[in-house]
Amino acid sequence: MRGRYTDVAMQEIEPVRLLAEPAIEVLDQTLLPHEERYLVLRDLDAVCEAIRALRVRGAPLLGVTGACGMVVGAGTRGADDASLGHIAAALKATRPTAVDLGTVVDRAHRAALAAGPDHAARLTALRAFAETFIETRKREDRAIAALGAELLSVGSAVLTHCNTGTLATGGVGTALGVIGAAWETGRLARCYATETRPLLQGARLTMWELQRRGIPATLLPDTAAASLIASGRVQAVITGADRVAANGDTANKIGTYGLAAVAARHGVPFYVAAPLTTVDASCADGSSIPIEHRAAAEVGGFAGSRWAPAGVDAYNPAFDVTPAELIAAIVTELAVLRPPYAESIMALIRQR
Amino acid sequence: MRGRYTDVAMQEIEPVRLLAEPAIEVLDQTLLPHEERYLVLRDLDAVCEAIRALRVRGAPLLGVTGACGMVVGAGTRGADDASLGHIAAALKATRPTAVDLGTVVDRAHRAALAAGPDHAARLTALRAFAETFIETRKREDRAIAALGAELLSVGSAVLTHCNTGTLATGGVGTALGVIGAAWETGRLARCYATETRPLLQGARLTMWELQRRGIPATLLPDTAAASLIASGRVQAVITGADRVAANGDTANKIGTYGLAAVAARHGVPFYVAAPLTTVDASCADGSSIPIEHRAAAEVGGFAGSRWAPAGVDAYNPAFDVTPAELIAAIVTELAVLRPPYAESIMALIRQR
Repeated sequence: MRGRYTDVAMQEIEPVRLLAEPAIEVLDQTLLPHEERYLVLRDLDAVCEAIRALRVRGAPLLGVTGACGMVVGAGTRGADDASLGHIAAALKATRPTAVDLGTVVDRAHRAALAAGPDHAARLTALRAFAETFIETRKREDRAIAALGAELLSVGSAVLTHCNTGTLATGGVGTALGVIGAAWETGRLARCYATETRPLLQGARLTMWELQRRGIPATLLPDTAAASLIASGRVQAVITGADRVAANGDTANKIGTYGLAAVAARHGVPFYVAAPLTTVDASCADGSSIPIEHRAAAEVGGFAGSRWAPAGVDAYNPAFDVTPAELIAAIVTELAVLRPPYAESIMALIRQR
Repeated sequence: MRGRYTDVAMQEIEPVRLLAEPAIEVLDQTLLPHEERYLVLRDLDAVCEAIRALRVRGAPLLGVTGACGMVVGAGTRGADDASLGHIAAALKATRPTAVDLGTVVDRAHRAALAAGPDHAARLTALRAFAETFIETRKREDRAIAALGAELLSVGSAVLTHCNTGTLATGGVGTALGVIGAAWETGRLARCYATETRPLLQGARLTMWELQRRGIPATLLPDTAAASLIASGRVQAVITGADRVAANGDTANKIGTYGLAAVAARHGVPFYVAAPLTTVDASCADGSSIPIEHRAAAEVGGFAGSRWAPAGVDAYNPAFDVTPAELIAAIVTELAVLRPPYAESIMALIRQR
């Protein structure tokens, strides 16, 4: 860990906050739900470490962190062409699957270069870009939440996976934003959340957010999701996305594909909620989405506990790909996309 | 915990052993893989506690434990009609889904009554029944293993769920017995094992058994199973069963149904390996199999660790039901059953 913890506990959740100096304050999500500690990241290495160690995570929040990371990097290492190139490359290399991080860093990079050669002007441009991006993110989340909630009929119980709330986006969340909006508008009866092995974002983060918001919530082992769907207890499954290919194939947290496959067998609609920045039209389909494989040590244990015998081999991809044919709708901030996605995605991107 | 640990560490795994006095020595599976400790159970309460707390588990091994538990119960509480009835009822009430426990206890009970009214004769009959049952179990496992291994082609990688090895049966195992036999006959390239939340039998027990036997093994989070199957890395999925209905619908460890559903989507055969005692012809289909729901505390944490916020609600069924249509074959000790199971199961039961 490269940042430094602050003693300040904040009331409202703000998972990533750009400070007046070139630094970011982040809620260390690896300590939740037991400890709510904020960490100040004052240089590029600290930002990269926080991303790699999943202290900040969630595809849209990684976009926010990338934009803020450019401010921190340029503010501490310099804003000349070489430094900016190095900072952008370092940030993009931290997590390969989430498309937002790379595209947002590239956009910030371009905004800095467009401000001309002056160091101060570039820093100002980077800060303005980050601040605007954060506001846009929050607005997009609210739009996704409102559009998505309309897909649910009154009294619905919904299953979600991983964490896609404020902690994942910096706004109201994507899939969990939809769930929150459905709760506020009287459509939601209960939210079921998977534990989400190996890093347990569902148990640790989603249940924490749901509990804070007073939304009726039930936790289940990932293994129990198929039984839950088969039992008729849920009327929809909704998740976020880390990258959506041009044909609608969607990479998301490992375990998503299995949920979608079982939902399809039972005629339960499977929805994806994600901002349009998550769409990567350069990927024709899911097979061209790079999938991050993480350390074997994450499997067979968690934090200080070890359940498996020492030294076991592990298969630990962080994401899987859900084929477009299993997705009933993709909720973006501009519209609810329906199949065939190759057409609806392209139409929306052209119109934007 | 009601039993007492012994200091003796044994070389060969014998998860349940009937002692000369009316007592059983069991390997406490809740302590694996870190500690290999044997526990002596000297009265009925200790046996029931060991079953409920999953110190002994696995449908076939529960049959063994039930047979031995009758010896312990009758030896300590008496073998008169009333005592035998009480002992049998107490043992059967510990776990509702595994059919073996109930049927074996009933068979032991009948064997005791058939020995006449004499206390000593009944005790002798119970011990003879238990010893014969243990030998039969081991023979059945070897037969299942040999028949099942023939289903796999040379060089296969196989995915399994939960623990179905020696620790689950007292013999060579059911699904894991098949995997072991496939390894010995050069058919198996690698065994993939799920962690199996919430009680992590795959991570703790299956990986321990595979490592002890020197079988190439890879552990995965339950969430990664769909990705693994979709990737083409496994040529078969094979699990045990806790109860098979007359039409072939199969109750097994929670998570099995999801594996079978995904395997079907990818044309990967899903096999069940179980002794014929697991077939319950009194259940017409899966909907009449009683499903045990376990404590919420098992979800959102493990052993001393707690990941979820305090006091969360949980959905925690111990088993799910895989519909017969998803099962390519059911391997029993007498034959490999193929669909339609309503016919093949009945034909085998009649012939037995």
